[in-house]
Amino acid sequence: MRKRYIMAPGPVEIPPSVLSVGGLPMIHHRTPEFRKSLLEVLEGLKYVFQTKNDILIFPAAGTGGMESAVINIVSPGDKVLVAACGQFGERWAKIAETFGVSVIKVFAEWGEEVDCARVEAELKNNPGVKAVYTTLSETSTGIENNIKKLGEIVGKTGAVFVVDAVSGMGAVEFKTDDWNVDIAVVGAQKGMMIPPGVAMISVSVKAKKAMAESKIPKYYFSYEQALKALTKDKLPDTPYTSSVSLILQLKESIRLIKEEGLENVWARHARIASAVRAGVKALGLKPFALGKPSNSVTSVWAPEGIDGDAVNKKIRDEYGITMAGGQGKMKGKMFRIGHLGYVDMFDAVIALAAVEMALTSMGAKNIPLGAGVKAVEEELLKKV
Amino acid sequence: MRKRYIMAPGPVEIPPSVLSVGGLPMIHHRTPEFRKSLLEVLEGLKYVFQTKNDILIFPAAGTGGMESAVINIVSPGDKVLVAACGQFGERWAKIAETFGVSVIKVFAEWGEEVDCARVEAELKNNPGVKAVYTTLSETSTGIENNIKKLGEIVGKTGAVFVVDAVSGMGAVEFKTDDWNVDIAVVGAQKGMMIPPGVAMISVSVKAKKAMAESKIPKYYFSYEQALKALTKDKLPDTPYTSSVSLILQLKESIRLIKEEGLENVWARHARIASAVRAGVKALGLKPFALGKPSNSVTSVWAPEGIDGDAVNKKIRDEYGITMAGGQGKMKGKMFRIGHLGYVDMFDAVIALAAVEMALTSMGAKNIPLGAGVKAVEEELLKKV
Repeated sequence: MRKRYIMAPGPVEIPPSVLSVGGLPMIHHRTPEFRKSLLEVLEGLKYVFQTKNDILIFPAAGTGGMESAVINIVSPGDKVLVAACGQFGERWAKIAETFGVSVIKVFAEWGEEVDCARVEAELKNNPGVKAVYTTLSETSTGIENNIKKLGEIVGKTGAVFVVDAVSGMGAVEFKTDDWNVDIAVVGAQKGMMIPPGVAMISVSVKAKKAMAESKIPKYYFSYEQALKALTKDKLPDTPYTSSVSLILQLKESIRLIKEEGLENVWARHARIASAVRAGVKALGLKPFALGKPSNSVTSVWAPEGIDGDAVNKKIRDEYGITMAGGQGKMKGKMFRIGHLGYVDMFDAVIALAAVEMALTSMGAKNIPLGAGVKAVEEELLKKV
Repeated sequence: MRKRYIMAPGPVEIPPSVLSVGGLPMIHHRTPEFRKSLLEVLEGLKYVFQTKNDILIFPAAGTGGMESAVINIVSPGDKVLVAACGQFGERWAKIAETFGVSVIKVFAEWGEEVDCARVEAELKNNPGVKAVYTTLSETSTGIENNIKKLGEIVGKTGAVFVVDAVSGMGAVEFKTDDWNVDIAVVGAQKGMMIPPGVAMISVSVKAKKAMAESKIPKYYFSYEQALKALTKDKLPDTPYTSSVSLILQLKESIRLIKEEGLENVWARHARIASAVRAGVKALGLKPFALGKPSNSVTSVWAPEGIDGDAVNKKIRDEYGITMAGGQGKMKGKMFRIGHLGYVDMFDAVIALAAVEMALTSMGAKNIPLGAGVKAVEEELLKKV
């Protein structure tokens, strides 16, 4: 009878009405019925992305979406800039290098933000850069980058601006068109609140021009084929079988986002994130984020002498809450509290209660039981 | 209050217990809980595939799985043989050519089987062929190829034998190991009876040796990375986020297949397919398949003067049954009745009733109402 919670930076808990769609009978993807739903989803995504650009959906993990934004845009030998501040940002460089693309690495220390001035300087020194790749919300460190500012910088150049918004879209402020984002790559299981398995990608006119020159071979992830299917007649279609159940769940989750209003969704995430951060601070714990903390995840150094993975494991196996440990080189040194998607005030209360209880029972010193929760409540009362 | 049916060659109807799993809360993919389910799924797939080989699962449509079996196995400039007899077989050639691979095309006329003798002769004339690509059940034409015989032929050469079993696995007899199949690519929404969105791929030792020599760049679909994640510790894992909801549904659908027994699953498909074929024949309709008809789909020429797509549309929009029309160059000339996955006796009865009613109301001549259904019943009674 243990109640289970997911407080990871994705997959997130699925709203009940979205779950219930997962239990409905299958429909065929080549029918007007499904294609009307696909149209509704694509229009809804334009609202969530804040864009007028075409949006493509591929059955794939977010990383497949990231790969697509490399292989459709650049060519072997091209130069690109990767502005990273953690595991997922650095993945852009690995993907680009895999396909023979030369990478200028503007890598921040983990915990810090991407340095916009360095990006600007590198772009000045390297006028031939074909694309700039970065990350909205870097979940491995809990940092949110200044995409607006980066978009201003990249928008002045010929480079295509590509943002991994996998775990930020639908949680933190993001304006594809206003911020000059040519390609935004978004995942299913984060702010979009559906089970993992589809990648959503917006493609600007500037990106389409780059596409026409790209010489990396592609078949499954071909934007050209996907764009052709999108517009071949009145209703959108996909070149290969669509992830029917996930698309229908997405229709419902977009309905929920629209019902709340995107600005309110962002405000809810901001309120809960600030409550979690206040709670962490009240416990005397050290936040990992030195730059702007993301409103989707809070990363915390494990206290002296306590293993971050052990904290995570205790909270998961004994309390029933799946949070996250440290990734890559931060393994064992931190734990991370996800607060995105289907998340509300008392999730922050539960999260801090769990952290207080786990650390106390693991022998951490100076963890005042209840102090984190008190700070959460105070912070929530300020803004409710 | 219209009852809805899917009688397409995929997606298929989802069994109720599999659907209900689609409505369960999310779990995180990096937990022991999920990874234990993944282990159970992979072990279960080995039974369904009839293999001891490793099996990989990628979030992707079947075509993504097909692409993976090209880019992981061969190199630009390599020579491969594609033995095709319809739209999906010919796709192998398109994919290979996209990646700079040279293709020997052993293409049968649509409606016929792959010519095993021609494959054997071409392999003798071209000793350097790196891989042979073919299709188990060619859904565009309704043909089932002789994979066993092709496996004997290819097994004597150095070529890797790759079979698109997307729409045959779990419906018609298939023995990966006994038939020398090095790579079998399987889709979700056919005999495996789950919603579309994952591709399952078995990889033999011979295929792994070819893998080590392949020079086509790959990241998302890298077998090397996927195999590493599979075996990094006691429980299997995936390099990128797994399609959690589909994997859990797959666990339930495999349980159903095991409960019935694979041989019984094949026999059920054979019985229902033969009833459908008897019904079609009794109506005086012309089957499209000249070679061995697949037990997963029956393809039928539209009668003189009747548009195949119109038959399909009428049955879908007025009767609530999604069958399929002709694909590619057969568009408008045929309709196809799918009978795979969660399919039983009375689906054949309904299918023939719908065809009789639709053709009669569209003015087709000599369609004796009830005769198709009668033949279905007679055929079913022979074998029940």
